[in-house]
Amino acid sequence: MGLENIRVILVEPLYGGNVGSVCRAMANTGLKALTLVNPKPLDMGEARMMACHAGHVLEGRRECATLAEAVADCTLVMGTSAREGLYRQHARTPREWAPVVLEAAAKAPVALVFGREDKGLSNDELALCNRIIQIPTDAACPSLNLSQAVLICCYELFVLAGVYEPPVEKSLPATSELRERMFAIWRELLLEIGFMESDKADHMMQGIRRLMGRGAQTEDDVRILMGIARQAEWAVAHLHDKMLRFERGADKL
Amino acid sequence: MGLENIRVILVEPLYGGNVGSVCRAMANTGLKALTLVNPKPLDMGEARMMACHAGHVLEGRRECATLAEAVADCTLVMGTSAREGLYRQHARTPREWAPVVLEAAAKAPVALVFGREDKGLSNDELALCNRIIQIPTDAACPSLNLSQAVLICCYELFVLAGVYEPPVEKSLPATSELRERMFAIWRELLLEIGFMESDKADHMMQGIRRLMGRGAQTEDDVRILMGIARQAEWAVAHLHDKMLRFERGADKL
Repeated sequence: MGLENIRVILVEPLYGGNVGSVCRAMANTGLKALTLVNPKPLDMGEARMMACHAGHVLEGRRECATLAEAVADCTLVMGTSAREGLYRQHARTPREWAPVVLEAAAKAPVALVFGREDKGLSNDELALCNRIIQIPTDAACPSLNLSQAVLICCYELFVLAGVYEPPVEKSLPATSELRERMFAIWRELLLEIGFMESDKADHMMQGIRRLMGRGAQTEDDVRILMGIARQAEWAVAHLHDKMLRFERGADKL
Repeated sequence: MGLENIRVILVEPLYGGNVGSVCRAMANTGLKALTLVNPKPLDMGEARMMACHAGHVLEGRRECATLAEAVADCTLVMGTSAREGLYRQHARTPREWAPVVLEAAAKAPVALVFGREDKGLSNDELALCNRIIQIPTDAACPSLNLSQAVLICCYELFVLAGVYEPPVEKSLPATSELRERMFAIWRELLLEIGFMESDKADHMMQGIRRLMGRGAQTEDDVRILMGIARQAEWAVAHLHDKMLRFERGADKL
């Protein structure tokens, strides 16, 4: 699937907390390979705290003096650029680039390069990148936090890689036959309790069918609604018997 | 477009830094309405620092005593749930829910509800939510930072809302006619400098066409490559003249 060939490269990050948050975002999205280029002295306590359960990404990081060294063995080098940056007209979104990145990563290391918190990447550094990524943001507030930018790029790759196993609905979808049995029981109940008259029943049941049909998607859903109607029929019959016994003086209410 | 009807609700957030990061993520994705439910005493200095240019979201927040109060006027109430939580089988991803959320938000307020950093949402709180969101993450490290979870949900809505204006390639795509003029000039040059013999020229040009055609997508690209070939022809001719003059003793090399 190639995610193990994707390397996140942070150029001269300033804050340990951001580096830690990047590690967590990477682990959340199945990535491990972090490279720091010429990092400033970082608050590693802060980094470890923000890395949370992704300490292994932080501890396993590589450090390089230059970006050229960090990407030397990579085929595709993806640079991230802010809204107003150079080369903007050639930039594409993380979602547009994701298939290109995964295809390259199936064969060789690929770099995702992120610049400094305050100044991004220099022109020399952008020149080393053969593709430019621009993350969609609101024009009124375009600048993302470093770890947020990393997350969006990694998330798009993770989603496309199809590693995530979506929750599985355990109950089967309800069939028409099962739904009709449920509606029949409800019809009987609603007539019995006087919610509708028999001459209006067909009309009233249209509304009931619509609202119950919308909610009851699975066999489990239908069985819950059937259970309620059956229990209500039983309770009504039981109460009726009680009333009769009471009227005969055989019982107390 | 409805983004102004989307409300981010944080239930009992613990850390000011996270609340600030949530504000920034919201502003990055065009959202403004933040509600805090029964927040613990927060480090507001930290919150303001992490909010960065999104101080207006932080200052404009609403505070409620209970989640029921916070969502009272919302039609759709989307709850976020961790991988192992209850109701997991009914959960869908932010990308799957996005069209449902935007459709509802076009008409009425919609809530995106996020639980505590350490314990998420209680069962009573989840019961107030009529849809459950689960963010795709790696099974080995499923737990996202609060602001990262908010970002992914808001990002999917922002992208689908289509507010983002993608970079525009200013140069028109190159036409075949322009490309053919460029190849003709290169063919001439490559023959002149002896890169290829005329009997092999057609064959060699196949490779040149492939590699230059891949790179030269726009009119600007083609004109750059044409310019190089023309300049090279000029330089070769110039040097040739110089050589001739030198051989005649009229000049020094």
